[in-house]
Amino acid sequence: MANRRYAILGTGGIGGYYGGRLAQSGQEVHFLLRSDYETVKKDGLRVDSVGGDFHLFPVHAYADTRDMPVCDIVLVCMKTTGNDRLGEMLPPLLHKKSLVVLIQNGLDMEQELSAALPSVALAAATAFICTFKVGPGHIHHAAYGDLSLAPFQTDATALLPGLVEDLRQAGIGVHLEMDAHLLRWKKLVWNIPYNGLTVALNATTAELTFQPDSRRLVIGLMQEVVAAAACCGADIPAGFIDHMIDLTEKMTPYAPSMKLDYDAGRPMEIRTMYLNPIEEARRAGFEMTQVQMLADLLLFKQEQRLKRKIDC
Amino acid sequence: MANRRYAILGTGGIGGYYGGRLAQSGQEVHFLLRSDYETVKKDGLRVDSVGGDFHLFPVHAYADTRDMPVCDIVLVCMKTTGNDRLGEMLPPLLHKKSLVVLIQNGLDMEQELSAALPSVALAAATAFICTFKVGPGHIHHAAYGDLSLAPFQTDATALLPGLVEDLRQAGIGVHLEMDAHLLRWKKLVWNIPYNGLTVALNATTAELTFQPDSRRLVIGLMQEVVAAAACCGADIPAGFIDHMIDLTEKMTPYAPSMKLDYDAGRPMEIRTMYLNPIEEARRAGFEMTQVQMLADLLLFKQEQRLKRKIDC
Repeated sequence: MANRRYAILGTGGIGGYYGGRLAQSGQEVHFLLRSDYETVKKDGLRVDSVGGDFHLFPVHAYADTRDMPVCDIVLVCMKTTGNDRLGEMLPPLLHKKSLVVLIQNGLDMEQELSAALPSVALAAATAFICTFKVGPGHIHHAAYGDLSLAPFQTDATALLPGLVEDLRQAGIGVHLEMDAHLLRWKKLVWNIPYNGLTVALNATTAELTFQPDSRRLVIGLMQEVVAAAACCGADIPAGFIDHMIDLTEKMTPYAPSMKLDYDAGRPMEIRTMYLNPIEEARRAGFEMTQVQMLADLLLFKQEQRLKRKIDC
Repeated sequence: MANRRYAILGTGGIGGYYGGRLAQSGQEVHFLLRSDYETVKKDGLRVDSVGGDFHLFPVHAYADTRDMPVCDIVLVCMKTTGNDRLGEMLPPLLHKKSLVVLIQNGLDMEQELSAALPSVALAAATAFICTFKVGPGHIHHAAYGDLSLAPFQTDATALLPGLVEDLRQAGIGVHLEMDAHLLRWKKLVWNIPYNGLTVALNATTAELTFQPDSRRLVIGLMQEVVAAAACCGADIPAGFIDHMIDLTEKMTPYAPSMKLDYDAGRPMEIRTMYLNPIEEARRAGFEMTQVQMLADLLLFKQEQRLKRKIDC
C-alpha cells in the first residue's frame, strides 16, 4: 500500500463515513471539524455501519485547515453552501501533486473552485449512500456506499488510480468514470426531483414514488433534467430514468440530504443543485421550466423560514 | 321591483352573503343548508359585513331541494366538488323560465351541467369578494363584493337583466359580460396561482406577491394561463396580469378559498380549477406544464392528508 495522506473537509455523514473507512483501513487521515471538534478530539469518531460498526480513537482532528499538514488527497465532504470558503481553506493543505475531490451534490462546483484555484488538480465524486450524523462525532451509515469518481482536468487523471486503490482497500465500491460533467448531470436526475419534492411535500422518497400524482411530478422533472443535460452536451443513456425509479422503489423510505437540511434548519443546497443547472441549460438555450418552479418553491420556503425565525 | 323568487344552493360565505343581501333588500330567498340547517331555522342568518351588518330572521331554510318551492333564479354557491349532485338537486326548483347561475371557481362547470340538464338556462358568475363562514349561520364579509355575470346560452341572455337589477337593488356591484368562457378563464388567471400556491407554500397572498421567488412563480403561472386561454379562444386583454398583481399588492393578506378548504380538511376544487383547464388546453394543443405541476403537488397533498387521516 502506497503511503498517502488524506484530509477530510467536513466530518458529517459523508466525510465521517468515507474518512472513517480510510482511517480504519490504515490510511493517515486528518479530519476538519466545526461543532464536533471538542467531542471528536476527546472521544474519537463512532461509525455505526451496515458494513460493520467501528470506533476511531485517537483521531487527527482540527478546527482550522491552517493547523493541518499538507495532504496528498483532500476529500471535500462539506455542503456546497460553504464552497465560497474553499479558496481560503484549501491552500494550506496542498502540495504540487495534491488531488482535491469534491464529494458533493450539484453542478459546476469544479468550475467554480478551479476559477479560484486554477492550478489545483480536481475530481468530481458522487456518493450513492444513506448516511447521516446522529450526534456529535457519531455517524450512522444506513445503506449503500459506492462512490463514483471522474477527473475534472487531465492533471487529475493520473492521480485518481491511487485514490481508487485506497478506497477499494477500505472496502468501498468505486466506479471510475471519464466525464465529470456527465457524472454531475446523471446524479442530478435523481437529486433534483427527490431532494426538492421531499421538502416541498414533506414526504419520503417512497411516498413520492408510489403515489401516482407525485410519481408523474418526479418523472416529469427527471425528463426535463435529461433533456437539459443533452442540450449541455451530457448524454444520459436511455433507460436511466426507469433505472432510477426502479432503484427508488426498492429503497427503504428515505429522506435525502436537502430534506435533512431543511428539517434541521440548515441552508439548502439550492444554488448548486438547482440554480447552476438551470443557468447552464439556459446558456445552452434550454429553459428548465419545471425545475425552475421547484427551485422557486424551495427558495420561498427557505426565505420564509428565515423570516419566521427572525420574527420569533 | 319585479317579483322574483330566489334559491340559494350552499349557504357558506358566498351564498350567505349574496342570498342575505337579496333577502335584506326585500326579495323572497330560499336557502338550502346542510350542517347549519337547524341553527339557521332557529336563529336566522347573521352577516357581519364591511357594507353593514345584518341579521335575517326568520329564514326560508331547507335541508333538501325537494322541499323548496319552484324558483325564478337559482344561485349555485356550493363548492364545485359537489357539482355531480346538481343534476338531481336542481330539477325540483326549476320552471321553464328559471335561470341557474353558477357562482363558482373553475372551468367547464356550465358545460358539465348542461350535459346533465340540457334545457336549463345557465349563466356563469365569478365573485370578487373576501367572505367566509365563521360559525353556523354566521358569515363574515371582509372586503369587496362585486359579481361578474355572463350568459352560457342565448336562453340565459334574456333572463340576466332581471338578476342584474335585483343585485344592484341589493347594493351589489355587477358587471355584465358577454362571454362566459372568457369570464371563467380570466378568473383563473388569479385563481390558479394564488389558490394552489397558498396551499403548497402555506402562505398568504401578500407573502407570495412580495417575495421575489414566489412572485416569479405567480407570474409564470399567470402567463401560462393567459397563453392557454388564447389557445382555447379566450383572449385575455394585455395588461391583465399586471392589473391582477397590482390588485393583490393592495389587498389585505388573504387566504383564498382553496387554502380555507385545505386548512379545514375539506376537499379542494382541484378538478374544476386545475384539471379542467389543463384538459381543455391540451385538446387545443397546449401543454400547461407549470399548472400541471402545481395540480400534481395539490393532488399529492390532498391524497396524503386523506391517507394520514385514515392512519389515525
